[in-house]
Amino acid sequence: MILFNDQLIRREEARVDIEDRGYQFGDGIYEVVSVYEGKIFRLEEHLQRLSYCAGEIGIELPTSLEVLITNLYKLIEVNQLVNGQIYFQVTRGYAPRNHPFPAQPKPVLTGYVTRKPRPLELMKTGVKAITLDDIRWLRCDIKSLNLLGSVLAKQKAIEQGAFEALLHRNGKVTEGSSTNLFMIKDGKIQTHPLGNLILGGITRIVILELAGQKNIPVIEEPFSLKELYAADEVFVCSTTSEVMPIITIDGNPVGNGSVGPLTRKLQELMEEMLFAHQEKVQ
Amino acid sequence: MILFNDQLIRREEARVDIEDRGYQFGDGIYEVVSVYEGKIFRLEEHLQRLSYCAGEIGIELPTSLEVLITNLYKLIEVNQLVNGQIYFQVTRGYAPRNHPFPAQPKPVLTGYVTRKPRPLELMKTGVKAITLDDIRWLRCDIKSLNLLGSVLAKQKAIEQGAFEALLHRNGKVTEGSSTNLFMIKDGKIQTHPLGNLILGGITRIVILELAGQKNIPVIEEPFSLKELYAADEVFVCSTTSEVMPIITIDGNPVGNGSVGPLTRKLQELMEEMLFAHQEKVQ
Repeated sequence: MILFNDQLIRREEARVDIEDRGYQFGDGIYEVVSVYEGKIFRLEEHLQRLSYCAGEIGIELPTSLEVLITNLYKLIEVNQLVNGQIYFQVTRGYAPRNHPFPAQPKPVLTGYVTRKPRPLELMKTGVKAITLDDIRWLRCDIKSLNLLGSVLAKQKAIEQGAFEALLHRNGKVTEGSSTNLFMIKDGKIQTHPLGNLILGGITRIVILELAGQKNIPVIEEPFSLKELYAADEVFVCSTTSEVMPIITIDGNPVGNGSVGPLTRKLQELMEEMLFAHQEKVQ
Repeated sequence: MILFNDQLIRREEARVDIEDRGYQFGDGIYEVVSVYEGKIFRLEEHLQRLSYCAGEIGIELPTSLEVLITNLYKLIEVNQLVNGQIYFQVTRGYAPRNHPFPAQPKPVLTGYVTRKPRPLELMKTGVKAITLDDIRWLRCDIKSLNLLGSVLAKQKAIEQGAFEALLHRNGKVTEGSSTNLFMIKDGKIQTHPLGNLILGGITRIVILELAGQKNIPVIEEPFSLKELYAADEVFVCSTTSEVMPIITIDGNPVGNGSVGPLTRKLQELMEEMLFAHQEKVQ
């Protein structure tokens, strides 16, 4: 069963028009949320971001956030999801193809559950990364369906046996193709500041919170590729990757080439939060 | 009737999966061709570009170009299209959502006819334009479905009563949101060179050809916003806009604020070509 606007329907009943603007322009936004023990982690922040992105591209959500929350939990229930994810997106909907917004848009929301296991093994061993030019558009703060730049970057990473592509604009590092990026040097955590060049990731917020609680110094300033290469520890984060240590970049070891202590610490803190958090949501 | 891969089917039979990568990533490419008196204008160049773009993002077209040509003409026939357009796109098809390319992609082609009349009145009177920052990605040579940057720019133009948004990167003019851009100064035509910052438009090729035939000097070099404002004439072009004169930019008249003589000349030459061309195609 999937969510289609405000209805739970069988997947095969979902009808996406060939002129849905999502299909022709990538004209829409999306979210991926994690479900731990039946509860959606940090749903409020995900929905705040969804609202922000909808506003930035002038899409009106097809239901209120309250109804959406109810429906996401119905989706969990009807699919008996305990641990996994929900993907949901909202497009500007069907209209005869033309670039400007249609006069009377009918946005289309689709959502469904997936059951990818947490990447616990990779989180333990760490993963490889490559670096690539960031060729994406200049509104990376909008979590839009225009993901071809990210797709091509991720594909290049995979082809080189890496987990992620770390992107930079003229040597200034931004983020991963589908993750936010952190480096650690001399006990300080550094990450690119919010703005139009990166996505304001929810796991990024969580990490900044955890670091704040533990008095780990955090610098939100851009850093260079050179600084990245010289980091003691590097990790990327996202809803599905959680805190994912990067142990080599472009074939060179990060620090001593194994998962560093601060990265491990943040993984542990996040683990505690994930399960402590259960009682707070809904 | 629409074209769906290699079949002509009724539109309502078309099934786009909610996890078609076109719908979730804008992971696909497209073409718009004009049909004049039943014949597709410059089809060969459109298909060359389609092949180029497919190659650049690693999509294999679902049929050979020969079969595609046959099917486009079947589409024209079955819809009894005399003058109008065909829109067609190819996505990487359905796969469980994940950024990298699926192991066994099944690309999906959809195509259909539209019957927008030629914009003859606007071509006669000229239209207004605004200028905007070009925030699109750095592979504008790929005619991809990642069109949100163009959509937002066109929408801003429309909201300001303009026909088109002329884009620039740090003051260097690139092209329109869905058109190529030309300026004329002292009898010379100037347009941005090919490369990753603009789309290699088919009408752009036609105009360069026509100018060449008439010994009108053409400069393919970037120019600044300042030069654009000081131009004698400005026009944009595309398959559906043909040669569209711009008579005001950001509220200021271009030249004397009416359609200039070289723009008019190019319109006439193109008109001749469109109808002379009939015998050559297919």
